[in-house]
Amino acid sequence: MEHTRIKQLLIAEDFGQEVIVKGWVRTFRNNQFIAINDGSTLNNIQAVVDFENTDEQLLRRVTTGAAVRVKGELIQSLGKGQRVEIKVNELTILGDSDPEKYPLQPKKHSLEFLREIAHLRFRTGTFNAIFKVRNALAFAVHQFFNERDFVYMHTPIVTGSDAEGAGEMFRVTTIDFDNVPRNEDGTVNYKEDFFGKSTNLTVSGQLEGELAAMALGNIYTFGPTFRAENSNTTRHLAEFWMIEPEMAFYELEDNMDLAEELLKYVINYALKNCPDEIAFLSNRLVEEEKSKPQSERSEMNLVDKLQFVLTNDFERVTYTDAIEILKRSKPNQKKQFKYLIEEWGADLQSEHERYLVEKHFKKPVILTDYPREIKSFYMKQNEPDAQGRHTVRAMDILFPGIGEMVGGSQREENLEKLLARMAEVGIPEHEIDWFLDTRRFGSAPHSGFGVGFERLVLFTTGMSNIRDVIPFPRTPKNAEF
Amino acid sequence: MEHTRIKQLLIAEDFGQEVIVKGWVRTFRNNQFIAINDGSTLNNIQAVVDFENTDEQLLRRVTTGAAVRVKGELIQSLGKGQRVEIKVNELTILGDSDPEKYPLQPKKHSLEFLREIAHLRFRTGTFNAIFKVRNALAFAVHQFFNERDFVYMHTPIVTGSDAEGAGEMFRVTTIDFDNVPRNEDGTVNYKEDFFGKSTNLTVSGQLEGELAAMALGNIYTFGPTFRAENSNTTRHLAEFWMIEPEMAFYELEDNMDLAEELLKYVINYALKNCPDEIAFLSNRLVEEEKSKPQSERSEMNLVDKLQFVLTNDFERVTYTDAIEILKRSKPNQKKQFKYLIEEWGADLQSEHERYLVEKHFKKPVILTDYPREIKSFYMKQNEPDAQGRHTVRAMDILFPGIGEMVGGSQREENLEKLLARMAEVGIPEHEIDWFLDTRRFGSAPHSGFGVGFERLVLFTTGMSNIRDVIPFPRTPKNAEF
Repeated sequence: MEHTRIKQLLIAEDFGQEVIVKGWVRTFRNNQFIAINDGSTLNNIQAVVDFENTDEQLLRRVTTGAAVRVKGELIQSLGKGQRVEIKVNELTILGDSDPEKYPLQPKKHSLEFLREIAHLRFRTGTFNAIFKVRNALAFAVHQFFNERDFVYMHTPIVTGSDAEGAGEMFRVTTIDFDNVPRNEDGTVNYKEDFFGKSTNLTVSGQLEGELAAMALGNIYTFGPTFRAENSNTTRHLAEFWMIEPEMAFYELEDNMDLAEELLKYVINYALKNCPDEIAFLSNRLVEEEKSKPQSERSEMNLVDKLQFVLTNDFERVTYTDAIEILKRSKPNQKKQFKYLIEEWGADLQSEHERYLVEKHFKKPVILTDYPREIKSFYMKQNEPDAQGRHTVRAMDILFPGIGEMVGGSQREENLEKLLARMAEVGIPEHEIDWFLDTRRFGSAPHSGFGVGFERLVLFTTGMSNIRDVIPFPRTPKNAEF
Repeated sequence: MEHTRIKQLLIAEDFGQEVIVKGWVRTFRNNQFIAINDGSTLNNIQAVVDFENTDEQLLRRVTTGAAVRVKGELIQSLGKGQRVEIKVNELTILGDSDPEKYPLQPKKHSLEFLREIAHLRFRTGTFNAIFKVRNALAFAVHQFFNERDFVYMHTPIVTGSDAEGAGEMFRVTTIDFDNVPRNEDGTVNYKEDFFGKSTNLTVSGQLEGELAAMALGNIYTFGPTFRAENSNTTRHLAEFWMIEPEMAFYELEDNMDLAEELLKYVINYALKNCPDEIAFLSNRLVEEEKSKPQSERSEMNLVDKLQFVLTNDFERVTYTDAIEILKRSKPNQKKQFKYLIEEWGADLQSEHERYLVEKHFKKPVILTDYPREIKSFYMKQNEPDAQGRHTVRAMDILFPGIGEMVGGSQREENLEKLLARMAEVGIPEHEIDWFLDTRRFGSAPHSGFGVGFERLVLFTTGMSNIRDVIPFPRTPKNAEF
């Protein structure tokens, strides 16, 4: 490797050394100052060309986006805002970039425009910062679980089961639409399909995760999951990454402790390891919000919001108590909520979740013990309360701005109770017979939760559209690149 | 958390303390000795019951697979092969396991049988060890790249493109087989499909990885990839995980250096962090091979094989030289190869790769500069040699026993050469127009490679069937659990 990465050079102390840099031209000013970026950092290095002694033809090829190799002396910079620069002795164009055709110019592009050229948006400061933060968060997730002896499990992507008992799914098939094999009764004969049965893309690795946890103790998944929902919003993706830990012998309290610890750990890791990126994104957000009316601007800047999560103990409150708080709240009384809270049993909307976090408790909130009817079949059933209301040992963690960040529960370990609930919601026993074996043989209390990774990246970067925090978003009518 | 994990207890020094253990019964001997495993380690802890003062009904429920909670005193063990044991004061059954029905009994089960109950096989020593090693390798991959400032990229799983220009793919769709939307000419109208076009499961993240590398510098992917090939072998899966780094400004030498470094790093990490597991798997292999004739047994045991990779510099040799070696080799002369090497241009089989590694060089081997015709369109084209033969800057890393472990190349950065090659092999320009932008705007030398993660786990665990190193294997006619 003959070159040095810019990230290293920008903190180098040994001025006078000869260095080689390879990267892409961000700007070229006064026929003299090339700002070069090689992706290793958000920041560019300045290369100063002796233009009077450089071939004019060559200089004309120094255009935004061109790949260059620069050899020269690393010197202290006299320019503002930079410590070092390179006095160029040798300039080579590795790859041209026709300024008439190159879509990225040194000016502000809208996020909408950049989404259309998602294959080039990595070349901007904003997306460099976003994907560095995303990378830091992903690594922190692995490090967190590794330090705690959790086993990383790759649960299957193609599956014959629907873990949540809900959610629209994508079919995975090798059947030819022009030649569909049929049974005698006219139905599709999936025995002829690749896997010999009807298969889908997974919506969650939880059920398989439970199998592993009930043997290995503590496990986690971190992989892609899918929803074929026709939701064109800033919060939905058809393909997204989920983190799903599952722990044998954990009860709900242990589950909440772990989830709170995880979120604080990974956000703290990103803050520590990506200070430049987060400062850049924080400024970006302030700039973006300047065009909004005061009332719509964030009360906290990005760094404050991250600190808000790090420094507060998450408030733990039952759904039942939360409903009372919401009922009596000003926006409910004044009918400012879009969905008014009238009675126990209502599903909470993002506006309610945000009220609890941002206005009432002024802390991240963990809501527990939700009504059984609005939660999944596998959650541990509480004894009915004095009014005969049924709740489950669920917990959702709510964050400012974004609402639900984590959803989890203690699992129902009692086979009879689980079967009864499955019958009520219409899940046939034979479909997940293998899952039920965990309750037949050595059942025990256990718990787990799921974190939508893109939500976490959204929160940590302060971006507002989930399509901007995954390299190539998949949404209805869109699977470009 | 009231309990302590067995992994901690087995190395504890403070005898006499009261401890609580939760786990599953592996064996129960003499109505007195319970071997308990909680998954945290391969090893069990022994709990000694005072059977004369314990309820008989309770003792009868201590069966293999039952979940128990044990409270007692941690004491030094007098038994052979163990330092500590628990003198039980309190025994609770958390979940029963009916010995008439529980499929895992304390005896040797065949790997074939365990594959059928893949949801329970995590409860065996062998699979505990395998998935601990798999976990260690996965973490090591992330740590390796994190230490080198590579950015982890989640490239898309659902894609409209076929990165390799080859390989059978799975369709991803929400179209109903009973109601297929058609165009006027009778073809399927994919505009009506979820993504508005025909989509598949990815076969490689490379092309998208290149987009990111040509902006962020060094990136890697680590995610699931798919092949709809009807191959029912011990080496093929329909769903498997791949690691694909891609580096801007890397030439083939740099690429080989990185790949060799990565493999040594992760195998060394597993050896250091899973010594018990690897020793267990090494013994397992020796036992397994006892039933084979001497000639079919491995020459090296598992640890030797891992050391073989760690201690040798990988031999770097061109395809052209390797063909000469193979032509002149004994097994070729004596017609012992199944596929005889007769001329330049032949694709190498596993038997040839293993000959080079195990017999000729006695080192891992990196073969470079393969014939253009047997490699992918995106590989950098060499100048034709004196005989006019065309080769590309490919490199494959070959390992003992297993053959190809890594496949990679320097990429063709020249737009005209790339287009010419695409035309020759019949890839329409418009299909990967976005990919070609990397060569249109600031093109530069770059390289990358792919590691099949399950192959790596197979090698490091000494297992022989790839279905035994992934939690829930997907193969033709099989997507259970």
